Amino acid sequence: MNLHTLIRDLREDNPSKIVLLVADGLGGLPLEPGGKTELESARTPNLDACAREGVTGLTVPVLPGITPGSGPGHLGLFGYDPLEYRIGRGILEALGIHFEVGPRDVAARGNFCTVDDGGLITDRRAGRPTTERCDEMCRLMQDIAILGLELFVEPVREHRFVVVFRGDGLGDAVNDTDPQQVGAAPLPAKGHDAASQKTADAVNRFVAEAARVLKPHAPTNMVTLRGFARYPKIDTVREVYGLRAAAIAVYPMYKGLARLVGMDVLDAGSTLRDQIDTLQRVWNDYDFFFLHFKYTDSTGEDGNFAAKVEMIERFDGEIPRVRALKPDVLIVTGDHSTPSKLKSHSWHPVPVLLVAKTCRPDAVTEFGETQCLRGGLGQIEAKYLMTLAMAHAGRLGKYGA
Amino acid sequence: MNLHTLIRDLREDNPSKIVLLVADGLGGLPLEPGGKTELESARTPNLDACAREGVTGLTVPVLPGITPGSGPGHLGLFGYDPLEYRIGRGILEALGIHFEVGPRDVAARGNFCTVDDGGLITDRRAGRPTTERCDEMCRLMQDIAILGLELFVEPVREHRFVVVFRGDGLGDAVNDTDPQQVGAAPLPAKGHDAASQKTADAVNRFVAEAARVLKPHAPTNMVTLRGFARYPKIDTVREVYGLRAAAIAVYPMYKGLARLVGMDVLDAGSTLRDQIDTLQRVWNDYDFFFLHFKYTDSTGEDGNFAAKVEMIERFDGEIPRVRALKPDVLIVTGDHSTPSKLKSHSWHPVPVLLVAKTCRPDAVTEFGETQCLRGGLGQIEAKYLMTLAMAHAGRLGKYGA
Repeated sequence: MNLHTLIRDLREDNPSKIVLLVADGLGGLPLEPGGKTELESARTPNLDACAREGVTGLTVPVLPGITPGSGPGHLGLFGYDPLEYRIGRGILEALGIHFEVGPRDVAARGNFCTVDDGGLITDRRAGRPTTERCDEMCRLMQDIAILGLELFVEPVREHRFVVVFRGDGLGDAVNDTDPQQVGAAPLPAKGHDAASQKTADAVNRFVAEAARVLKPHAPTNMVTLRGFARYPKIDTVREVYGLRAAAIAVYPMYKGLARLVGMDVLDAGSTLRDQIDTLQRVWNDYDFFFLHFKYTDSTGEDGNFAAKVEMIERFDGEIPRVRALKPDVLIVTGDHSTPSKLKSHSWHPVPVLLVAKTCRPDAVTEFGETQCLRGGLGQIEAKYLMTLAMAHAGRLGKYGA
Repeated sequence: MNLHTLIRDLREDNPSKIVLLVADGLGGLPLEPGGKTELESARTPNLDACAREGVTGLTVPVLPGITPGSGPGHLGLFGYDPLEYRIGRGILEALGIHFEVGPRDVAARGNFCTVDDGGLITDRRAGRPTTERCDEMCRLMQDIAILGLELFVEPVREHRFVVVFRGDGLGDAVNDTDPQQVGAAPLPAKGHDAASQKTADAVNRFVAEAARVLKPHAPTNMVTLRGFARYPKIDTVREVYGLRAAAIAVYPMYKGLARLVGMDVLDAGSTLRDQIDTLQRVWNDYDFFFLHFKYTDSTGEDGNFAAKVEMIERFDGEIPRVRALKPDVLIVTGDHSTPSKLKSHSWHPVPVLLVAKTCRPDAVTEFGETQCLRGGLGQIEAKYLMTLAMAHAGRLGKYGA
């Protein structure tokens, strides 16, 4: 029996509140043998108190050894098997700008680039134009028409935009047109099957038209497209868990992921403090709150160990305001590890803590990778966290008589 | 999505080297309550150094409580789900003598036995004949013809040989003809379905003919057959992982298992020292090296605790020569446990260590069953070790955007 079917069968409603705090890329590595990770180096009195009071462990985002992108990482945390539910880059980008993608859509991420007179790319990001310029160039492309399809071109920021092709029978098995290097021309789109060839034909017509309208506007005189993706069919958090869910995120992609599973995406301001203000404000309106903190990941990606430590400490500093709301279940974890040492996402398991009145405590006294190895949750696939949250919230009945 | 499909999608090539050292039957049990296991009793300074430097844990060969044979044990270590990929004994034996089994073959393990005038078995191993005698008796049987099939009879050693039936539509659901006791006659073969009955008919004809040609040659005057098995279709390590893989094993069965997953089986000499010499010699020619050490298992099967301890120490003594090659990823584990106390394979999880620059260390200071319980890998199904090896070798890209 499928996990979601089981949860639908067993779920019960009550007035409990569940908070999922995601410090993106939380897990780390020591820089030196015998050293401490970022989380272990940070002074985190509030998270440590949670670890003592609740139960801890480590989550495996996908499977041992598999490094997730943000999409699979978050889907797992939301309780969706990331190997079953696959979200393409184009859809993520579209969701991130609040574009209402639908079942007849194929979305792609677009980049402005600069080409020379021979059509060869000289700058893959067109000199990182301003966002105003991005808006202006997108408006030029919005007049492009492709027979039999609806076309949407929407700016994201700087050199980035989204294209959505809307029509019947469009496949998404289409190659990226970005050749990933300068000195090469953008690649033609090809479909791996008939439906995808229909999309590829539209893509090639769009790119040819874009080249024509952008020609006088160097350095933003050409585009590349990648991450072609159809809108995935995903049951909402409300349908699966019966939860009214709110997402309090700052960055577009995480808003998009939350919208994909049916969460209400709230205006969250731009700082963690703003996000907690939002949490306080809407506390009575929802059952489940997903709060996303970006900077533990971005500092890790930058390879800046000290900055990641500082971001973890800043994150820790806001924990008391969350706890003051007295959530019935509080979960703190990351969607994956981003060790500063690797400057990238990694496959290493992610520390997790869960605080609820029904926790069976463990001997863990500080929130960190090494101590969490002894945690009561053990090492579990991230997709089970929501089931545990539901259980600790008293929202899951007994399975079987 | 299937694990192998995922790995094929994500894998990347690089010049890294992965070494998998398998000490067969490595895991053990204390003889007395409160005592130490064989591995914990052994003096293993080199393995302990690996455990401190890398990450440790325990592998579950198949599922909790399931004791694997050598086939499932190794398939798991090679990253093949041992419940999905099933290899019959006959195929293993055939592979072990370098017989080129193919898709139309059913192979069986044969034993010479001694029967009395009434056809009842008096010695199930025919007094353990010399291997020369085994060769000679097999030659007698090679003249047997069975209409519509090709037949191959190949000596292994002492009382053991292999029979391969080659033809169209042969099933392998055929019972063993060995009655597993003296004083009984060999059992007739029966097929559990029509295709297997076709095989069983051929088996019965073969056994009748064998009895006729061997009659004057007591004590090797009869045969029993068991482990009827078809050739399984298995994607190679090259196809799944993109690895050029070498097997450095001494015993036929392990060579056969490695050949089954497409590894090059190298001439490995006869001692562990020879095997490491081979490893050194071919270091530049492969990406992945499987090195099999048999004697930790055979001493366990003998119930000789002290001898198993000694074999573990001998194994430990060769570790520095392996590390001197500076593999990017070094894994040391067993295919299953073989506690001397039980004199047999067992289901107990197997200590594992992994050394790589990207390890998140744990608090384990010595390589042993009890300490590995606190290891950073946790207790994982053995089939995920290869995924972890690929990740630590930098050979797996990110899953999803």
